[in-house]
Amino acid sequence: MSIRERGFKRLVKVGDALNMLLSKVSRKDAIERVSLLDAIGRVLAEDIVAEEDIPCFNRSAVDGYAVRSRDTFGASHVNPVKLKVVGRVDVGETPSISVSEGEAVEIATGAVIPDGADAVVMYEDVKAVDGEIDVFKPVTPLENVSLKGEDVKKGEVVARKGLILRPWDIGVLASLNIPYVNVVAKVKVAVFSTGNELVEVGERPPPGKLVNSTKSLVLTAVKELGCETLDLGLVPDDVEKIVERMREGVNVADVLITTGGTSIGKRDYVREALEKAGGSILAHGIAMKPGKPTGLGLLEGKPVIMLSGYPVAALVGFEAFIKPLIYHMLGAQEQPRAVIKARLTRRVASTPGTRSYLRVFVEKRGDVFYAEPLRLTGSGVLSSVVKANGIVIIPEHRDGFDEGEEVYVQLIRPVEEGF
Amino acid sequence: MSIRERGFKRLVKVGDALNMLLSKVSRKDAIERVSLLDAIGRVLAEDIVAEEDIPCFNRSAVDGYAVRSRDTFGASHVNPVKLKVVGRVDVGETPSISVSEGEAVEIATGAVIPDGADAVVMYEDVKAVDGEIDVFKPVTPLENVSLKGEDVKKGEVVARKGLILRPWDIGVLASLNIPYVNVVAKVKVAVFSTGNELVEVGERPPPGKLVNSTKSLVLTAVKELGCETLDLGLVPDDVEKIVERMREGVNVADVLITTGGTSIGKRDYVREALEKAGGSILAHGIAMKPGKPTGLGLLEGKPVIMLSGYPVAALVGFEAFIKPLIYHMLGAQEQPRAVIKARLTRRVASTPGTRSYLRVFVEKRGDVFYAEPLRLTGSGVLSSVVKANGIVIIPEHRDGFDEGEEVYVQLIRPVEEGF
Repeated sequence: MSIRERGFKRLVKVGDALNMLLSKVSRKDAIERVSLLDAIGRVLAEDIVAEEDIPCFNRSAVDGYAVRSRDTFGASHVNPVKLKVVGRVDVGETPSISVSEGEAVEIATGAVIPDGADAVVMYEDVKAVDGEIDVFKPVTPLENVSLKGEDVKKGEVVARKGLILRPWDIGVLASLNIPYVNVVAKVKVAVFSTGNELVEVGERPPPGKLVNSTKSLVLTAVKELGCETLDLGLVPDDVEKIVERMREGVNVADVLITTGGTSIGKRDYVREALEKAGGSILAHGIAMKPGKPTGLGLLEGKPVIMLSGYPVAALVGFEAFIKPLIYHMLGAQEQPRAVIKARLTRRVASTPGTRSYLRVFVEKRGDVFYAEPLRLTGSGVLSSVVKANGIVIIPEHRDGFDEGEEVYVQLIRPVEEGF
Repeated sequence: MSIRERGFKRLVKVGDALNMLLSKVSRKDAIERVSLLDAIGRVLAEDIVAEEDIPCFNRSAVDGYAVRSRDTFGASHVNPVKLKVVGRVDVGETPSISVSEGEAVEIATGAVIPDGADAVVMYEDVKAVDGEIDVFKPVTPLENVSLKGEDVKKGEVVARKGLILRPWDIGVLASLNIPYVNVVAKVKVAVFSTGNELVEVGERPPPGKLVNSTKSLVLTAVKELGCETLDLGLVPDDVEKIVERMREGVNVADVLITTGGTSIGKRDYVREALEKAGGSILAHGIAMKPGKPTGLGLLEGKPVIMLSGYPVAALVGFEAFIKPLIYHMLGAQEQPRAVIKARLTRRVASTPGTRSYLRVFVEKRGDVFYAEPLRLTGSGVLSSVVKANGIVIIPEHRDGFDEGEEVYVQLIRPVEEGF
């Protein structure tokens, strides 16, 4: 008896299904060498160890005069200390001069502190007259000096393998004079849809047919994560044709995603095709709403994610499984999401044992965020996501949330201020 | 007397400076026509109005039998209602059959509801025998039917100009059969650095010189926002050469960013160069820390943002001015950021009247987030940002935050769970 006749007897919990999947899929070990500017947003494939101190010399942090601090002790407006100016050091120069007792060297911000000096007096605390300065304020040792190694010490690990490179990381790599870095190769994701009722975007649907919106949603969601995407089109509801396209998918990509044909209807051939192609099913029928018919499997060692053909259910399947899978394969941690606490404007019910994804509209009134639940059902109703600016997850151990209850909302759009 | 001798007498508040800048810069009106898959993350340049209902026909939401709901009233396991099965409608087909009293038509999920029927009985609520079904449960009118226009109604504005297109938006556009959309052209941003003490990444710095890290940081920060970037290199501290490179910059780009040379030292020529090139200064000397020497100006009607040469100060200038400027030019709202509330582990002081940007390390212990302030000063100390996972803004009206005070933290990296 096939799954289509049996139905989903036992639903697998989201967390259990995800763990099963991740335990079977290894990290991507292919590496690319890219320039620093191309490395933004990529995952570092190596530890970066500082080969030198940064800064690599003691620098002045201000414009002024490099001095021996002890020469300035006791200086005041009433009793200024007089020092002889014996030269000047500019940025980018190696000082040819040193500072002895009773002497000062004019110095620019960023310039090398000359030998003998251990502090810098700022312009505003001196008066310069005829090759001499009157110092009105004492400086302590190392005052206004940026110490060698202050930013990064030689031998320090400044960035670890698995780091998603952000602009400040790129800045540190630049300061270490690293023009190229090894990053994890992009994950290649192939997507195809099944469904005799579908036509592709741009084709005119004959009566009774619909435009395939779920594939565009999934392809762009995967693209947003920085993956390389391969659009494998639309396959009719025919086991042999689905088998063939699946083999093609795992041949060209690291991850295969299908949309549609995963439920228990007469024409839902995707699971059957995966088994026929020689693949295995890890989980099929997930305790989540929407997205119950989502399936997870393997074909030739590569993950096959079978998403619902309904766009909202596919999006939930993407969030629950594909996003964590991609980060797992990249060996990186998920970036923090925008999450706020908001009060629910009305009670919402959910099925205990099932993880529900609720679309809400968040509005700020005064200092308080309010979350208005949009319709909970309707896995095909994409406009409910478009109208929403947030998602609330109702966990398995709850049968819903009460009116006025404070819940965590993942923001998917900016929140507007209410009245 | 030049600014370099005068110093910053009056500092402009961040908000005032930004408003001045935005009031002088208009939105980008250039438009690009891109395919749906290329439209992800781009800013919509037109309102999208639905030209038809979605779905464009009444569909079955389940697999089962299309019936006249009133024929099923009173049905139960004890007293099932018997209906004659007169045909089958599959997805993608136009039903050639209609449902009369006492009749049912087998129907697949997504298939067109045949004339006469107004509800669908699910498989599990019937027993099929010899061309007839026993219905065990009544259905209400429209039960298990997805109504025409339920998702999107003809004439409805489904996406507004200025929207940053996310996957679900792409899904809705696909369902409306829109293969290409008009998006706002990318903002072109040119960046150059000044500083005789600098060499470019990959060059070996002679003694006393440093690798330019700030330009890589700024270029990649701008790239992360989806801008087109132009690297205009490194210019010596020479007014004429800076003037020339500025003219080149506003010639090729929509926004020009400079790094370095904006302070009040002897070699800080950037402001002077902008004036000499015929540009105007909107604000120079900002009440923020770090980033005080940041300057905002215009040249040939284009914004010129003069950032500090210090990487952390440049990053703060980027967050305070460049990010809002880019969103303003795109006509889009900033995406929500990941912000959490955390308790400060120690008091931090700041100067009243100045907006301070504090780097913190956030850790979760139990249910509480704690934010440990990293060093407040050191605008050159990039490693303080690399070690931080969050930024706390101390507003102008405060002189700091107390130990244990709850503050908002913008997360720039994931938070790890502590012990």
